[in-house]
Amino acid sequence: MVPLPTLQWMDGFLRLLDQRKLPSEETYIDCKDIDTLADAIKSLAVRGAPAIGIAAAFGAVIAAITSDPGRAFEADFHSKLDILEGTRPTAVNLFNCLEIQRDVFRMSSVRENAVRDLLKSARDMVRDDLEASRRMGRFGADLLKKGSTVLTHCNAGGLATAGLGTALAVIYEAWDRGLIKKVYADETRPLLQGARLTSWELSRAGIPVDVLPDSAAASLLRKGEIDAIIVGSDRIAVNGDAANKIGTYPLALAASAHCVPFYVVAPLSTFDFSTECGSEIEIEQRDRNELATLGGRKLLPEGVGVWNPAFDVTPALLITAIICEKGVLFSPDDEKVLSVAGKS
Amino acid sequence: MVPLPTLQWMDGFLRLLDQRKLPSEETYIDCKDIDTLADAIKSLAVRGAPAIGIAAAFGAVIAAITSDPGRAFEADFHSKLDILEGTRPTAVNLFNCLEIQRDVFRMSSVRENAVRDLLKSARDMVRDDLEASRRMGRFGADLLKKGSTVLTHCNAGGLATAGLGTALAVIYEAWDRGLIKKVYADETRPLLQGARLTSWELSRAGIPVDVLPDSAAASLLRKGEIDAIIVGSDRIAVNGDAANKIGTYPLALAASAHCVPFYVVAPLSTFDFSTECGSEIEIEQRDRNELATLGGRKLLPEGVGVWNPAFDVTPALLITAIICEKGVLFSPDDEKVLSVAGKS
Repeated sequence: MVPLPTLQWMDGFLRLLDQRKLPSEETYIDCKDIDTLADAIKSLAVRGAPAIGIAAAFGAVIAAITSDPGRAFEADFHSKLDILEGTRPTAVNLFNCLEIQRDVFRMSSVRENAVRDLLKSARDMVRDDLEASRRMGRFGADLLKKGSTVLTHCNAGGLATAGLGTALAVIYEAWDRGLIKKVYADETRPLLQGARLTSWELSRAGIPVDVLPDSAAASLLRKGEIDAIIVGSDRIAVNGDAANKIGTYPLALAASAHCVPFYVVAPLSTFDFSTECGSEIEIEQRDRNELATLGGRKLLPEGVGVWNPAFDVTPALLITAIICEKGVLFSPDDEKVLSVAGKS
Repeated sequence: MVPLPTLQWMDGFLRLLDQRKLPSEETYIDCKDIDTLADAIKSLAVRGAPAIGIAAAFGAVIAAITSDPGRAFEADFHSKLDILEGTRPTAVNLFNCLEIQRDVFRMSSVRENAVRDLLKSARDMVRDDLEASRRMGRFGADLLKKGSTVLTHCNAGGLATAGLGTALAVIYEAWDRGLIKKVYADETRPLLQGARLTSWELSRAGIPVDVLPDSAAASLLRKGEIDAIIVGSDRIAVNGDAANKIGTYPLALAASAHCVPFYVVAPLSTFDFSTECGSEIEIEQRDRNELATLGGRKLLPEGVGVWNPAFDVTPALLITAIICEKGVLFSPDDEKVLSVAGKS
């Protein structure tokens, strides 16, 4: 598996695959300043918790390059990082990666060093992310039997990471081992990342994939067609509760009702050790237009409101296992989460 | 509450409100022949189990008017009804209403009588449907407490019936009694009947309504925001299992997990006494395009399949009560279903 060109550092700027235009167009956005990058993150040109984190880490390099070289350098740099930090509230990778870059910045004394050190740090994150994907892929594939039909939600693939994915890393590895019969991908309303991105990624890799309405997954489970559900995460609390794209929680409820294993695949960079449990996770509300219009056509009468949360929280109790780069946490809880991170 | 102009007999033809164009346009289709009506049913210009049944009953009048007046009259009439019968497989009202019309036809000796008798029978169905809506509305509203926030799925309103609805009849009556604080309407992929039709109906009646992605309903339940879920049905089996728009079953699972009452509202014409349980109900698969395109834009790469069932089946075990025009069946089962229909 070759990593997807989700993010590429181009000697002075960050090139992002514009995911809003997939699958019809493969075009790129060149981010040479913070505002362009912040817009790309807000508008989901780049999305997926690990990819957002790494994009922001490269954003810190851009911040150092573009900050006032005089006395205001430090203040300017941090205020640019504040802009990135304000783009999306749920994925913890964004905050984790920016915190790392602020530390790197503090350790560098002059501007030239800062750019170099921040770039090295961002590149290390890419390397670590790819390596984490490979390891999660292997741990996850070990849990699947030959002939498996699996279901996934949203896009936790190469497009959501530095190029190899989380949930889809497991599917890619299992496919290479000859274990996968077929994949079902929830279309994932409202922005249809499952239909547009996951089906694009999987069919590109030659893996058979069918797309279904999110609300049809429970019927597939009832028919006994699904051997495992594999999803990513945007933030995992210390007790194992996992925030992920809206629609993950009802999927976990249906999996539980039908005794189908439910796996969450996420690197340690998605774990939030300052959040005790899922109810503390801030859930982003997205714009009315995502539900009120369809391909330019107005869907909702004036005065009709929307409730459009980007994420939901699946309680640890409904998660068969969390798969991270350090191993598999069956029936996740505080003790296992802290232990795998070396914090207990 | 004034009935919506879902279907109107216009002295020789049937005028249907074209629901595909709501809420942006209120236009009508005049059905003067069977093919126009069959297309309207297939393409969901008219939809909702009771409305389909009544439209088909008027279709029988059109069939009698347009059939060859000679020797082939009877055969021609029945073959036209066969066309209507082949439009959609799940809603039992279609078959029930056509069966009644075939019986009426058999009792009429000459063509003039047939048209008159079939028209009277169709008009009786409209009257009975409106009366059933009013009765279901009252029975259902009796189950709601003051200040209720309720959630509904798809459109089980005036647009799905002769004009007053099933699930929405309950909401209209409860609103008139001052019991409703707010309604949440699932957008209902893929054809968005909740977003387009339910929000249009409710806001027209002055009832506050928010639309949400189908996959967000479970989170609302978890937040404790919903006092009851109220849906319609396309076919109810003898054991109380209920087929309804895809996405109803996962909603019932989530309701059960959160101890929120789950009500199915449907007239006796939706009960299928020849179907023992839900697994016998044929589920219509809809076209790939419903998922593969969005407002004319291509969403899925070539070669990606879809799984697009129009309905799912909610087991009786998950249904708090079925509300029909004869009363409320708590914890529905064979005995209660047969008894309410006077068949035990």
